[in-house]
Amino acid sequence: MTPEVQVLLNTLWVVTAAILVFFMQAGFALVESGMVRAKNAVNVIMKNYCDMCVGAMGFWLLGYGLMFGVSTSGWFGTTKFAPNSGEPFEYTLLFFQMMFAATAATIVSGALAERIRFNAYLVGSFLITTVIYPVFGSWAWNDNGWLKQIGFIDFAGSTVVHTVGACCALAGLAALGPRTGRYAKDGTPRTIPGHNLPFVALGGFVLWLGWFGFNAGSTTAADLSIGKIALNTHLAGAAAVAGALVLCGLLGRPVLLTTVVNASLAGLVAITAGCAFVTPGSAILIGLIAAPVMLLGEAFLDAFKLDDAVGAIPVHGFCGVWGTFAVGIFKESGADVKQMCIQLLGSAAAFGFVFPTAYVMYRAIGAWMQLRVASVDEQRGLDFAEHAEVGYPEFQEGLLHGGTAAPAARPAAAPTARPSVTAPVGRN
Amino acid sequence: MTPEVQVLLNTLWVVTAAILVFFMQAGFALVESGMVRAKNAVNVIMKNYCDMCVGAMGFWLLGYGLMFGVSTSGWFGTTKFAPNSGEPFEYTLLFFQMMFAATAATIVSGALAERIRFNAYLVGSFLITTVIYPVFGSWAWNDNGWLKQIGFIDFAGSTVVHTVGACCALAGLAALGPRTGRYAKDGTPRTIPGHNLPFVALGGFVLWLGWFGFNAGSTTAADLSIGKIALNTHLAGAAAVAGALVLCGLLGRPVLLTTVVNASLAGLVAITAGCAFVTPGSAILIGLIAAPVMLLGEAFLDAFKLDDAVGAIPVHGFCGVWGTFAVGIFKESGADVKQMCIQLLGSAAAFGFVFPTAYVMYRAIGAWMQLRVASVDEQRGLDFAEHAEVGYPEFQEGLLHGGTAAPAARPAAAPTARPSVTAPVGRN
Amino acid sequence: MTPEVQVLLNTLWVVTAAILVFFMQAGFALVESGMVRAKNAVNVIMKNYCDMCVGAMGFWLLGYGLMFGVSTSGWFGTTKFAPNSGEPFEYTLLFFQMMFAATAATIVSGALAERIRFNAYLVGSFLITTVIYPVFGSWAWNDNGWLKQIGFIDFAGSTVVHTVGACCALAGLAALGPRTGRYAKDGTPRTIPGHNLPFVALGGFVLWLGWFGFNAGSTTAADLSIGKIALNTHLAGAAAVAGALVLCGLLGRPVLLTTVVNASLAGLVAITAGCAFVTPGSAILIGLIAAPVMLLGEAFLDAFKLDDAVGAIPVHGFCGVWGTFAVGIFKESGADVKQMCIQLLGSAAAFGFVFPTAYVMYRAIGAWMQLRVASVDEQRGLDFAEHAEVGYPEFQEGLLHGGTAAPAARPAAAPTARPSVTAPVGRN
Repeated sequence: MTPEVQVLLNTLWVVTAAILVFFMQAGFALVESGMVRAKNAVNVIMKNYCDMCVGAMGFWLLGYGLMFGVSTSGWFGTTKFAPNSGEPFEYTLLFFQMMFAATAATIVSGALAERIRFNAYLVGSFLITTVIYPVFGSWAWNDNGWLKQIGFIDFAGSTVVHTVGACCALAGLAALGPRTGRYAKDGTPRTIPGHNLPFVALGGFVLWLGWFGFNAGSTTAADLSIGKIALNTHLAGAAAVAGALVLCGLLGRPVLLTTVVNASLAGLVAITAGCAFVTPGSAILIGLIAAPVMLLGEAFLDAFKLDDAVGAIPVHGFCGVWGTFAVGIFKESGADVKQMCIQLLGSAAAFGFVFPTAYVMYRAIGAWMQLRVASVDEQRGLDFAEHAEVGYPEFQEGLLHGGTAAPAARPAAAPTARPSVTAPVGRN
Repeated sequence: MTPEVQVLLNTLWVVTAAILVFFMQAGFALVESGMVRAKNAVNVIMKNYCDMCVGAMGFWLLGYGLMFGVSTSGWFGTTKFAPNSGEPFEYTLLFFQMMFAATAATIVSGALAERIRFNAYLVGSFLITTVIYPVFGSWAWNDNGWLKQIGFIDFAGSTVVHTVGACCALAGLAALGPRTGRYAKDGTPRTIPGHNLPFVALGGFVLWLGWFGFNAGSTTAADLSIGKIALNTHLAGAAAVAGALVLCGLLGRPVLLTTVVNASLAGLVAITAGCAFVTPGSAILIGLIAAPVMLLGEAFLDAFKLDDAVGAIPVHGFCGVWGTFAVGIFKESGADVKQMCIQLLGSAAAFGFVFPTAYVMYRAIGAWMQLRVASVDEQRGLDFAEHAEVGYPEFQEGLLHGGTAAPAARPAAAPTARPSVTAPVGRN
Repeated sequence: MTPEVQVLLNTLWVVTAAILVFFMQAGFALVESGMVRAKNAVNVIMKNYCDMCVGAMGFWLLGYGLMFGVSTSGWFGTTKFAPNSGEPFEYTLLFFQMMFAATAATIVSGALAERIRFNAYLVGSFLITTVIYPVFGSWAWNDNGWLKQIGFIDFAGSTVVHTVGACCALAGLAALGPRTGRYAKDGTPRTIPGHNLPFVALGGFVLWLGWFGFNAGSTTAADLSIGKIALNTHLAGAAAVAGALVLCGLLGRPVLLTTVVNASLAGLVAITAGCAFVTPGSAILIGLIAAPVMLLGEAFLDAFKLDDAVGAIPVHGFCGVWGTFAVGIFKESGADVKQMCIQLLGSAAAFGFVFPTAYVMYRAIGAWMQLRVASVDEQRGLDFAEHAEVGYPEFQEGLLHGGTAAPAARPAAAPTARPSVTAPVGRN
């Protein structure tokens, strides 16, 4: 094959894959809005929609250069900022990597849902996409990154994207605290049911769809291996669901939709690091094991009263670590203890760099512009408090005109009442 | 073109097409959940989500080998089970065919909605994907299959996927019986309206999207013909909708959303067998005729009190037969009576093998683990009875705390009440 | 590269892009149904679903030939009608262009929502797809079109698709008049809130997804530039959202979901004309400026009591003009006043031809078959009046059994009551 044909094929494939990864934003928005109460549905979707936008510009401006510019130190790149000219394929790579950065950032939005201020969230998300994610990413994926140099393997980002996103989320919810009423006085967690489970499942399908681009596009080239990568991706997601079904049966628990969807995502996260290097049989095992890892992660967070509104950290964090480690066990050349150690080091480096950095960032944002909405706004819902609208105005009369927060109690800072909320025209 | 370039292009195209076919699962989930009552919305989505998962593993383990392994007898293959190594393109083909198997299986979920037990459904779905679909598939698509040997033409699966799925669905609803209240004492069918028509239409769009991968990917190669195949696919779906609009006008019936969406799917099913062999003008005719075929199919089922909750059998069964037959009429080389006979034989073989096999299967599952939910659970909704949750907890108060089935009447076997259902926290 | 490989790659890419553009129909359906009241949700989706279908046949029959047939005059083509044979790649192009035609037509559905009769809408949409859009399109995109001959640049259709669609919409709403209650006696516009904001955001994501096919597919060839085109597309959409966030902040207005989604579409429309010819930095500027252009467009329409139910005209019309003009400013070869004049001429030609033609068309349709629903049907909702069903029967009891229009007042022409609406079976 001539290089001319190969680069054209690479362009076609990587652009197609990037478009699929883009659509994961819609998947996140659906899963997250479905898992929160109706009064916060607009807010969480807006966070997804807007973080992608501010992040795209930040990643173009600074992030891409930090991650893939020439990195003489091995710690971050120093060229390729705000690229406005160059090889055509460079734009293709930038487009693809921009979608990855958006994915890492948007993992945070669900975990912090129902109490973080919109503006504060956006500032945090911008900094994650522009600085935190690219710097860590350069360690693992820049040709000269120190983790890459010592042999760390993370094919499509179990650590680089998912663990990093989960560490940011964990830092955020440590800074924010749990939602009001999430834990009883004795610490028992209380379920806060999501308002639209069909959305959650639809979001799961959309994320799964995008994951084929995420994993099979990470070749960043047209390659015969993409069939196997896609197959492994699918089998791991499927196996994790099967694992969750079996676990629910063994534990005598009802099979919840949220458990099934999160299990599928857990399997997909876990296979992300090794999808190009393991057999389909191993992919099934990696997925199967992701199910209990996710359920243990949920119990772990609840034990520490860390209120992750959508279960993002068990899925992206715990299973990101598991999937990264699993490369050392299951790679086709055989289990390799040294590789396992390197993989653990990579996960530890992600946590050790990202968690404290993001925690300081969220504290600083909080000091600057208040991180959490007022208690009365949390009661009333962030849709009304932050955006002066609600998701389903015709079906939420009670939410608007009654509710636990009496209208008189509304703080003066609340947005002025708009006709769309207080006096819908033409209703019925 | 070098073989090296060709196989790489084939890989790119077939993987892309398979990803589109994957997304049809989301389309089915949306159409089916939208067409059932809110109290069963979670259950039908869960069936779609989970059947794909257990089916993927079954198809990898056994189904692919039965369908595409070496078939010395012409009745089923005996190699390629649980493939863990081999040519890279073999994985690509497996990935593509796995999505087809999932499609065939998931056709069943809608027809049997609102009364089949979740576990019983999953066992049936696993067996369809793993055994029934692959065995029939090998007759038509295995190089040595007996139907293929006699000249049966089914390019992308009007029979192999759609008729087979519909025959399984028919067997299931014969075994299950109609939903409570679906037919009056005198046999008059009563409409049970779906709870979310926008979901139905969105599902129709998603299925249509996936169908381009389904049909144009069935080249299993990068080929100049895919433009024509995609065009024919689109025109047939469009023509069927136009046919339904005209028919509703002529019959003086209102134009229902469900009729329009099912008509589009009917046209897409009908063009599936011949999309590569007919002209665009013929594709329009095939689609146009699919609309009355579907409507007649609906009337036929109602005459026998066969309660297909979403109209899957008229769409996938009757129009699958029509589309398969139409190849003999419309293929570009001219109408061919011998071909028509072979096509009919293929449809008859599908019905003759699949319907009784699936019927025995569902009866056996019923004997083993009870096929149908208890009457009280059907009243209360399968979401609560089978999964201990509801789709829209904030908008279904009546379904949870009141309803025709008094709480005291709930059987002891019902899942223990979870906080998410009986005492939502933070509902404002 | 051999021509054989190139044409195969072109086929793969253009078919893939066309499939993405197809999916924009689902995006329009979601945005538009989410932005209208629940009582009109089915109707607006049905318009989207059905206009695509009747349009596809009209475009195959007549439109493609008018647009891309041999155009000796420069005003319309006269060959390639109802193509049933020819080069394989011709079918690929037809498939791609058919999706563009559907996009132009469907822009209209949202603007005219909540009061236009279903049949009248479909007739109009058929004529737009079959005649109006193709004739203008031939001016700009036919090799011999007069606008193309004088150097007009519209890479992917800011004018050809979006401005044309918006001019049709403007003509339609001038003929129809505003919705009842939309403007107070003193002319003050009153907000009519959409019933499902999550649908609006999901639709925004789907449209954005499809836009990558829309813009990067407009190469109609596999080309190294598609990475840059996709990147520019993404950055412009993102920048427009950022611009809207900043504007809302400066104006002290709450950040509404509909504003953010429409801003993203505004940025995508604006970059459509020049996406292949500008740098990423310029794409950001073009997107940023689209946000105020859209907001000014909204104010402009309200000043003239032109009631665009979803804001389609500010997005597709005003920003279509802006994006077309921006090519003259930002193209990589430098700002060019002559080019700006040609670009303005192209926009003026679109308005000058399309608006009066479409206005006469809508008036004629109105004279023939009544354009607007009866006032009582507008009150009751078009779903019930035009389709005898409602979108969410279990959640719209009030809309069905009560409401401002007393049942006795229903006109005799209303469809006969169906069981699905008046006596749902098995509810709860």
